[in-house]
Amino acid sequence: MPDHAAPSIRATRDVADAQRGSAPDTASLRLMANAIRALSMDAIEHAASGHPGLPLGMADVAAVLYGRFIKADSQQPHWPDRDRFVLSAGHGSMLLYALLHLMGHQDMSIADLKAFRQLGARAAGHPEYGHATGIETTTGPLGQGLATAIGMAMAERMQAAHYGDALVDHRTWVLASDGDLMEGVSQEAITLAGRLGLGRLIVLFDDNDISIDGNIGLVDATDQIARFDASAWHTQRVDGHDHEAVAHAIEAALADPRPSLIACRTVIGLGAPTKQGTPAAHSSPLGTKEVEGVRAHFGWTAAPFEIPADARAAWDAAATRARAARTAWQARLDAAAPETKAAFLAAVSNDRPAGLDAAIATAKQRFLANPKNMAVRKASEAVLEALVPAIPEIVTGSADLTSANFTKIPGFEPISADDFSGRYVYWGIREHAMAAAMNGMVLHGGMIPASGTFLAFSDYCRPALRLAALMGVGSIHVMTHDSIGLGEDGPTHQPVEHLAALRAIPNLLLLRPADGIEAAECWQIAIEERRRPSVMALCRQEVPPVRLDETTENRSARGAYELAAAQGKAQATIFATGSEVHIALAGRDLLRAAGIEARVVSIPSFELFAEQSREYQDSVIGDAPAKVAVEAAIRQGWDAIIGRHGGFVGMHGFGASGKPADLYNHFGITPEAVRDAVRQQLSAHA
Amino acid sequence: MPDHAAPSIRATRDVADAQRGSAPDTASLRLMANAIRALSMDAIEHAASGHPGLPLGMADVAAVLYGRFIKADSQQPHWPDRDRFVLSAGHGSMLLYALLHLMGHQDMSIADLKAFRQLGARAAGHPEYGHATGIETTTGPLGQGLATAIGMAMAERMQAAHYGDALVDHRTWVLASDGDLMEGVSQEAITLAGRLGLGRLIVLFDDNDISIDGNIGLVDATDQIARFDASAWHTQRVDGHDHEAVAHAIEAALADPRPSLIACRTVIGLGAPTKQGTPAAHSSPLGTKEVEGVRAHFGWTAAPFEIPADARAAWDAAATRARAARTAWQARLDAAAPETKAAFLAAVSNDRPAGLDAAIATAKQRFLANPKNMAVRKASEAVLEALVPAIPEIVTGSADLTSANFTKIPGFEPISADDFSGRYVYWGIREHAMAAAMNGMVLHGGMIPASGTFLAFSDYCRPALRLAALMGVGSIHVMTHDSIGLGEDGPTHQPVEHLAALRAIPNLLLLRPADGIEAAECWQIAIEERRRPSVMALCRQEVPPVRLDETTENRSARGAYELAAAQGKAQATIFATGSEVHIALAGRDLLRAAGIEARVVSIPSFELFAEQSREYQDSVIGDAPAKVAVEAAIRQGWDAIIGRHGGFVGMHGFGASGKPADLYNHFGITPEAVRDAVRQQLSAHA
Repeated sequence: MPDHAAPSIRATRDVADAQRGSAPDTASLRLMANAIRALSMDAIEHAASGHPGLPLGMADVAAVLYGRFIKADSQQPHWPDRDRFVLSAGHGSMLLYALLHLMGHQDMSIADLKAFRQLGARAAGHPEYGHATGIETTTGPLGQGLATAIGMAMAERMQAAHYGDALVDHRTWVLASDGDLMEGVSQEAITLAGRLGLGRLIVLFDDNDISIDGNIGLVDATDQIARFDASAWHTQRVDGHDHEAVAHAIEAALADPRPSLIACRTVIGLGAPTKQGTPAAHSSPLGTKEVEGVRAHFGWTAAPFEIPADARAAWDAAATRARAARTAWQARLDAAAPETKAAFLAAVSNDRPAGLDAAIATAKQRFLANPKNMAVRKASEAVLEALVPAIPEIVTGSADLTSANFTKIPGFEPISADDFSGRYVYWGIREHAMAAAMNGMVLHGGMIPASGTFLAFSDYCRPALRLAALMGVGSIHVMTHDSIGLGEDGPTHQPVEHLAALRAIPNLLLLRPADGIEAAECWQIAIEERRRPSVMALCRQEVPPVRLDETTENRSARGAYELAAAQGKAQATIFATGSEVHIALAGRDLLRAAGIEARVVSIPSFELFAEQSREYQDSVIGDAPAKVAVEAAIRQGWDAIIGRHGGFVGMHGFGASGKPADLYNHFGITPEAVRDAVRQQLSAHA
Repeated sequence: MPDHAAPSIRATRDVADAQRGSAPDTASLRLMANAIRALSMDAIEHAASGHPGLPLGMADVAAVLYGRFIKADSQQPHWPDRDRFVLSAGHGSMLLYALLHLMGHQDMSIADLKAFRQLGARAAGHPEYGHATGIETTTGPLGQGLATAIGMAMAERMQAAHYGDALVDHRTWVLASDGDLMEGVSQEAITLAGRLGLGRLIVLFDDNDISIDGNIGLVDATDQIARFDASAWHTQRVDGHDHEAVAHAIEAALADPRPSLIACRTVIGLGAPTKQGTPAAHSSPLGTKEVEGVRAHFGWTAAPFEIPADARAAWDAAATRARAARTAWQARLDAAAPETKAAFLAAVSNDRPAGLDAAIATAKQRFLANPKNMAVRKASEAVLEALVPAIPEIVTGSADLTSANFTKIPGFEPISADDFSGRYVYWGIREHAMAAAMNGMVLHGGMIPASGTFLAFSDYCRPALRLAALMGVGSIHVMTHDSIGLGEDGPTHQPVEHLAALRAIPNLLLLRPADGIEAAECWQIAIEERRRPSVMALCRQEVPPVRLDETTENRSARGAYELAAAQGKAQATIFATGSEVHIALAGRDLLRAAGIEARVVSIPSFELFAEQSREYQDSVIGDAPAKVAVEAAIRQGWDAIIGRHGGFVGMHGFGASGKPADLYNHFGITPEAVRDAVRQQLSAHA
């Protein structure tokens, strides 16, 4: 892809530096912090539910960050070059809602705060992406925000490498808790950020030494500073209630080329007479008496949900400062070369990529021109080779299985700390951070990330897949080695329940193509789906092509379709997915030889099929007396199609280590088994 | 529980120290290491599949460990006080199989090695627990072995605290790779071990700087020594091919009270002329030419699968040394106080606990004596209060949700680095390491661990749950807050797909009791199930009791049963689980008022129900024309019971933040919805 960098244009960093001159003084910061505290307590008491400890403890840090540093425009909250702020400790949601209200976000009014935690509220229990502007990602499951933020910071550097610092030059800020840092995914995220030298990532750690069960020392002896140092971060520790100290630490973090951790020593629930510094402040409303104590401690006398004029003025000034850089950015965008501007705006639009259909057609033509047995993971690689030149937003990668996933096509260069212009990510053995960071890339905008790992290891990244589905994020997860067909590595590596377990996640597409043509169609679906994640389950072993029809229609898009019709009236319908479709076809041939007519239905996606009209579904399922499903996985979910008494040729437990062909025979997933299952069905009906 | 410690008996540590005097010299260690290398290469070439890099690289370390330090008896491989060796880098399985063969395990013959990776082989692609003696746990999914080993080391200390060092005094050794240390779960495991000061845990890190995608530097900049230092480990780095240096490092590790990391600098695929030190040596057979090069490098001239007499003699001597401590241990066991000996042997027998039935009966009586609305998580606590005095092997804990999971009953003391006599574990915010370590506790023997977290976070520990199921490990996972009924925390915390996703895992029991009586029955099932893991899904909200029948029969044990019969012929059957059973009953009342007779079936476990006879299943499902299921979760899996056109009152996507009652109304999971669904079913059939 062309390099759109325009280095002659002054970097926004200078602009941001300049703005800091007009930053609020300590007195203003104190007012600002107390406004956060008051609103947080008021909303939590009003809701009789919520987590006051974090907003009370981190209000000072938040005031400094928003008062002096953050670059964002509440009037244009989707401004592409805004800083991203991620409240990884999502239980402290009132801190974020208070910030958004005070910064002037129109969709976070006092009325919204009064609805905190009630059904339908924008101010949900945890921050929910899409509920209000300024909520950059959904958080709550610990560690996810931090790992998601890594992806945002990666996206920023990758876009800057392509479009230039003039258009892309922002920071990613994370507020993280002890809990965030204790979850394993945090280590994956931290080490990845360290290796990539994500200097524009700054983590503000709420170092309050308290978790629900007690003091952190009860469960952890880790020196977090030393831990981050070990992975090439810049680290500092400050008094999180000392505004100037926090500000100086942030200045130092900005000046250092490494990702930064600022451990902010704070008191959870600061000001609460008996609860501060204890787990009691964490996750329950403080109660009237403690709230009064906090108010007294900070000299806050305004009525609940009221912000005094001086505090409001300080926040208004902060909002004005924060948005100042946008004007200059807009000028730079307008001054940019037209092709740079157009390419940038197209990338961040999140629209359907223009070149998609032609690329898919090309891929299909290639398969049809040279039909041969091939692993569907290899077919996927061939589709990517057609797609990638047409869609510059695609970024692929693998969690240390590059040579097995086939997601790195010729010419793809990896990104590194020194060069972010590549389009491939060596994620390392970090499935969880990979999936979470991909969420961050999509949320950042302008990227279509596609990962690689084994399907069995979808378990390792499942919390991030779920968040992708919940947020409606169109990440694409290439998961190869999708059944016992992977062979000798055995049951730990052989998915049997994973197809069902992924189909169970609402708003996630599980795509399991049977050959090259279906792989092309599934890639088309996945690229089009910018509002839900896709998992592509691809077989390791070679399978024959099952589709040789020349069509630009995406037959997989309806989820299921009749692949092979019966001659005359069908006595049986055989349903199959992926690498078992050819077994279904061979079973049909055996049945025909035995005088039994069967049709074959391919089901690349249960979810898409479930979205079709009842009439279409009924027509595909059909009314043949025998219904048999073939899938090298467990039965769960298939009863919806074949019924409780339908025939199932598949797995009934875990796999085993052995040659793929031996395993298919051993577990009875063969054309003969299909034939016998149909016969059994027919005799049961006779 | 009584303290069975008998401190006057000499500790085995002294015995082990003494044996080291007769340890093999460097020449013998060289022979021993080369025997590992040769067998590993031979088996991998024979199978034309496998991972030679690790056995070639770590053979020297393994020879030192087995030659001089490990305490184990291949003739009595289940000896309770043996050292545990965990090959966390399970892809290097041939190293373990070679070790087991050379140490004299009868069930790992040369014929077994020749069957490596073939269907039915004991020497499977990755080490599979139960396939052969000496395989202490299944490994392959990276990081799991390390985290499992933490649990083994915890179990050792906890048992030593109860039965004394005379009977329990062994070590846990882990061979871990870069990949193990890059997975997030490793951080949870490392920090937990550091906090608990597990000094008998020694991790031998195959520090070879290579992963599949290339040099580690490509993806990670972490200083592992510094990282472990940060979490209170004892750390060293040595040349992994220098036998004496490795031995000295192990001596130093044994002398330090902290858990130890020994980073062993090795060359992957050492000796392979062109492949050593490169990813090419990792996961594919080396090929004839490279194998010849390795053999020449090490001067190994024996035919494939042949072990020269001098090497065999060195290994025999190692096996003799390793088992020497067993005789002294047996003498100490025989000399122990009879009650100590009996209690110890009962604990490690893994038999059905004697006091189980009486304790369950007590718990049931308490519920019947005082029937009232209560959260099933609270009911579970009440059951635990009856169970714990009767079953000393039970150890409970929570991943920082003690006050929400109710797994810490009065009188339970937490374990700590200073005192392992407690029976409660503050796991910290480490769901993944918790589940993996619980596997290790069960594999170690003598423990029945029960965890605590929220059901939504089963995703965080899913890889370890899967391994529990694959290995047949009877861990118990208390997972509360099991639906939208948790309320305000919102969709990130509300499981909707998790019941289905857990039911999908083969050999795992998902138990979802409806009230106190069912909770008692489900606990009885979970405790009895020593060969498969259980997940107890428990609601946060209060629900009325649905069972008031006085019975010692465990009605939940059949998975599903008719809870409420119809008066006369039923026109509908309403199926429900857990917190929705009372809604089904209320729906039945509404229907009766409308002149429609319905029966209600409670299904605490799909898996147990699927194991019943076809006749029983048919009788429970019944033939009423209307079938309606009620579960505050997605439909997947229910079609097997209610059919594709059955009525479903449940969730169709993610939840929301709000009051529990508002959510049940919003999502239409109410008695009225049940009534209407039945009516719709009946009209469709009319």
